[in-house]
Amino acid sequence: MTATTLKVDLALVHYPVNNKNRETIISAVTNLDLHDMARAGRTFGVDNLFIVTPNSEQHKLVGEILDHWSTGHGGKVNPDRKEALSIISIKDDLAGVYEAATKKWGERPKVLATGARFQGEGVQSYELVREQIFAGQPVLILFGTAWGLAPEVMEMVDGFLPPISGQMEYNHLSVRSAASIILDRLLGKR
Amino acid sequence: MTATTLKVDLALVHYPVNNKNRETIISAVTNLDLHDMARAGRTFGVDNLFIVTPNSEQHKLVGEILDHWSTGHGGKVNPDRKEALSIISIKDDLAGVYEAATKKWGERPKVLATGARFQGEGVQSYELVREQIFAGQPVLILFGTAWGLAPEVMEMVDGFLPPISGQMEYNHLSVRSAASIILDRLLGKR
Repeated sequence: MTATTLKVDLALVHYPVNNKNRETIISAVTNLDLHDMARAGRTFGVDNLFIVTPNSEQHKLVGEILDHWSTGHGGKVNPDRKEALSIISIKDDLAGVYEAATKKWGERPKVLATGARFQGEGVQSYELVREQIFAGQPVLILFGTAWGLAPEVMEMVDGFLPPISGQMEYNHLSVRSAASIILDRLLGKR
Repeated sequence: MTATTLKVDLALVHYPVNNKNRETIISAVTNLDLHDMARAGRTFGVDNLFIVTPNSEQHKLVGEILDHWSTGHGGKVNPDRKEALSIISIKDDLAGVYEAATKKWGERPKVLATGARFQGEGVQSYELVREQIFAGQPVLILFGTAWGLAPEVMEMVDGFLPPISGQMEYNHLSVRSAASIILDRLLGKR
């Protein structure tokens, strides 16, 4: 199976996510999340990186960043970056992401949430999901910003990916780091 | 073997590195490199993240960032971040890094360079290096900023880690992403 048949999308969720006090908020888009996750996504063969926020000002901001790199100066001086950012698509909400991915693949993708604390029922191993991806299964992986995906997101997913950790108790990776590692585990060349 | 016996350090090198035209330059320190690599380092049990630059203004900048998180406001509102950034140490050059690591471990660490294009002689597999680390071998891993470590660095290392890639030809990870993936491969819980 060649790389072109991989059917993997990512969604970087800015709503609904938790703040430090476990309240549901809309987080702000971070420029470098877009760059790092698009570069990692493109490197590992991700089809779309969906940026999810209902805030119209944030849509405008993301649009300006993408314009700079697609038709503006950025893309001329750094065509590799232009290619990476071309996988980004902006959506108002997760329903819009599910709809776009379902339409694209001709079937609803398997939706997996990521987080630093998942365990027990519903957690699926990286090996299993990797096998499913390479067998042609469409998969959509959700990443939360701020203090992570809000509980209501979990009710709409098909499962969870195990937390990433080392041998330490400390576990506070940036979403950029976590996404990179998860892509390597699921799609990296071995 | 417990996590406390891991002897792994990282060096984020801002000189000597290449620019786009393969000239040797001093690159500027990026605030988010420090945060992301320190968080990943702390999560995976890295002892020190050495920030290498000969530029005294950049030393001052890094010092101010660290102060904000160690004794300033940042550490009060986000103690996890304070803990992560505590692994950072600033050095003028790689000679100073080798000296500090050798003194700390009582022997010269195995020094491995990372990059997107290594192949052939001197490349050591992640499995092999992981085994050596868990057997107690001190290891220092060098990461280049800008367009990567300058050729003169390669003459001082004991080997190279294989490039990280997916199934695609495109391979333009940020140093933050590459470092996170490499730490997971060498030190991640399985």
